[in-house]
Amino acid sequence: MTADSFDYANRLRPDLPPAAVKYAGFPKYNFVGGHNDCDSVPVAELTKAAAAVITREGHTLGTYGLNSGPQGYLPLREFLVKKLKADAGITCTPDDLLVTSGSLQGLDLVNAAMIAPGDTAIIEMSNYGGAITRLKRCKANIIGVPVDGDGMSASALSNALDDCKKKGIKPKYIYTIPTIHNPTATIMTEARRREVLALSKQHDVPIFEDECYSDLTWDGVRPPALRAMCGNTNQVIHVGSFSKSIAPALRLGYLVASWPLMGNLLGLKTDAGTGALEQMILAEYAAKNFDGHVKGLRKVLKRKYDVLTEAVAAEFGTAAEFEPAKGGIFLWVKLPDSVDTFKLFQAAGKEGVAINPGVEWATDSTYGKSRLRLCFANPSEQALRDGVAKLADICHREFGVPVRSRNVQR
Amino acid sequence: MTADSFDYANRLRPDLPPAAVKYAGFPKYNFVGGHNDCDSVPVAELTKAAAAVITREGHTLGTYGLNSGPQGYLPLREFLVKKLKADAGITCTPDDLLVTSGSLQGLDLVNAAMIAPGDTAIIEMSNYGGAITRLKRCKANIIGVPVDGDGMSASALSNALDDCKKKGIKPKYIYTIPTIHNPTATIMTEARRREVLALSKQHDVPIFEDECYSDLTWDGVRPPALRAMCGNTNQVIHVGSFSKSIAPALRLGYLVASWPLMGNLLGLKTDAGTGALEQMILAEYAAKNFDGHVKGLRKVLKRKYDVLTEAVAAEFGTAAEFEPAKGGIFLWVKLPDSVDTFKLFQAAGKEGVAINPGVEWATDSTYGKSRLRLCFANPSEQALRDGVAKLADICHREFGVPVRSRNVQR
Repeated sequence: MTADSFDYANRLRPDLPPAAVKYAGFPKYNFVGGHNDCDSVPVAELTKAAAAVITREGHTLGTYGLNSGPQGYLPLREFLVKKLKADAGITCTPDDLLVTSGSLQGLDLVNAAMIAPGDTAIIEMSNYGGAITRLKRCKANIIGVPVDGDGMSASALSNALDDCKKKGIKPKYIYTIPTIHNPTATIMTEARRREVLALSKQHDVPIFEDECYSDLTWDGVRPPALRAMCGNTNQVIHVGSFSKSIAPALRLGYLVASWPLMGNLLGLKTDAGTGALEQMILAEYAAKNFDGHVKGLRKVLKRKYDVLTEAVAAEFGTAAEFEPAKGGIFLWVKLPDSVDTFKLFQAAGKEGVAINPGVEWATDSTYGKSRLRLCFANPSEQALRDGVAKLADICHREFGVPVRSRNVQR
Repeated sequence: MTADSFDYANRLRPDLPPAAVKYAGFPKYNFVGGHNDCDSVPVAELTKAAAAVITREGHTLGTYGLNSGPQGYLPLREFLVKKLKADAGITCTPDDLLVTSGSLQGLDLVNAAMIAPGDTAIIEMSNYGGAITRLKRCKANIIGVPVDGDGMSASALSNALDDCKKKGIKPKYIYTIPTIHNPTATIMTEARRREVLALSKQHDVPIFEDECYSDLTWDGVRPPALRAMCGNTNQVIHVGSFSKSIAPALRLGYLVASWPLMGNLLGLKTDAGTGALEQMILAEYAAKNFDGHVKGLRKVLKRKYDVLTEAVAAEFGTAAEFEPAKGGIFLWVKLPDSVDTFKLFQAAGKEGVAINPGVEWATDSTYGKSRLRLCFANPSEQALRDGVAKLADICHREFGVPVRSRNVQR
């Protein structure tokens, strides 16, 4: 209902996603989203980079795409060519790179190019919520494949592909987050990557590889990207991001694909370019500072991870099960089957504790029901401890789990 | 055809827009796009603004949406509240404002919210090419209404609405670019605005007002926005941009709408925010510098406009007809009926002269056939003269128009 004389109830499309609610500030205990450690934002170096690059090249802002064309600021693409070679083994040229407004835009472009209503996509069963909602909006048929400690299960993938074949279905792609999988924080081993690539080839189904967390392994080491292992062909479309390694409010990601596919994706990028100041400043910054910065950030995140896992163990005891994360910014927790984490999410939300309920982070609601994702990069160490304690209190009150919660012991 | 082992020909959706071609640099004579005068980019002030705001608030980049939520950086919305009041008479609060990644994103959001395949949109017959292609991609039924010297024709709009009513069609919106209409560069008079608003009310069809050129009237004066004149209700959704007033490579626009409609639009903005550095730097810059900058830019553009129109008159003589532009960055030219400007566009393109052919800038191909749009903000004064001379030469060679072209006289 609205006091506005023009009501839109009957003017809007019937199939819209839920309306957003007004922003009311961040929750006190913010365990959701890809928010990062604010103290780690390299403010001084970004300031220097901004001053240098705007002074030197600011006049190029007068044209769409600067002087680099619609694929993105050339020095940023040149940085990425070197970075992807060194870190992920990918061989590409600036022509194979598209700078996107966050890796989310990469997801949107690939979906827009490939997914018509009723098309099938194979994805990891536990998954990034935004990838699932995007596919649902495309009216895709989503097949979830379980993840084990070595990554997406090759046997389950093989079964899913065989099953599709029997039904005469050709899946459009296999979507995977191989390095620091969201939400399980596992890393797909090199052996598993080979198996997945072989299945992709055998069934003639391309892979859509989302490596947006791959800079954040605890030890700084990552396996070669699937895009590299397949011989740098369009068997694998690769996307990545600077949201996790530098700052989430920077809306900068990238996509690696060869032409002519790149031309199809670019034809769908009708935004008149990704933000130029973001690209210029990041490129200027990254050339000198990226590696050193990420090295420091990993340590900060590992320290917060340790604080979080200690708090979860202390507050939930054996009620909370989780595999050690191999990097990243989140922990995927299993609570007893009696806990409905969607209800916990609702109850905790009212008391300033924001969590991601498992059903939103999984293709299978039974699997997701008693799981939750806790992001640990943004809260202070004290907030991590206090927030987990509060969550345990609420969970105890609502579900009797953990059996002996903190306020009972007091 | 591709050497890549993975061919996408049969994997892509069948209804994609044309694939993009590889960027090959700007044409020598660039009369297309919203490119601006590169010497007018306020490099020194943007540098200062960047240093100040990143130093002061850079740590907030660690969270999505900074501390401002998904509607955009609060100081930028606060600047817009003041600007829109002062310049366009609009009364709004930061809650009614959405910062978008260019006004194009505003178009995309409104279309995504309102236009289902087969829905009807009424738009000005001569129009921004990107607005037409967007509606075509939405599979909309497009009704074009002619524009005269006072703006969109009220009598033609009235007829179009009556005609829809007879057919039982409820148009989703009336899209208009009232101030410096693209491409005719006319300004809708206040009287005409009242007529158009009355028709909107009478037929219960909202207006979608695109004011992205409104800062660039020659005299700096603009009529009140339709959004202001309707009483600041959702009878009018208003979008605007900084692409034309500051720099096109900055991807920053804005949308004014009241809740709950704002919530529906925001629910569709799944990009995790508009680029934060762009927003922060622009807000810091604009608070002190916007008015003075635009005042200077108008003079530069008026001078280039004078050079262009003198060159068109000198090279094409009476063969080229145009109404005086009231501001902006483009001239809408009518050539004799014998000239097919799409063929001229193709021929000129091969020789480094880029123009917008009328058929891409109009809903009626007969109307558009012998018209073209010339953007004059980006080329130097010499390039304006040389480019128009070359265009006249090519036009003479291809169509015998103008009858006595420059190379004939030599």
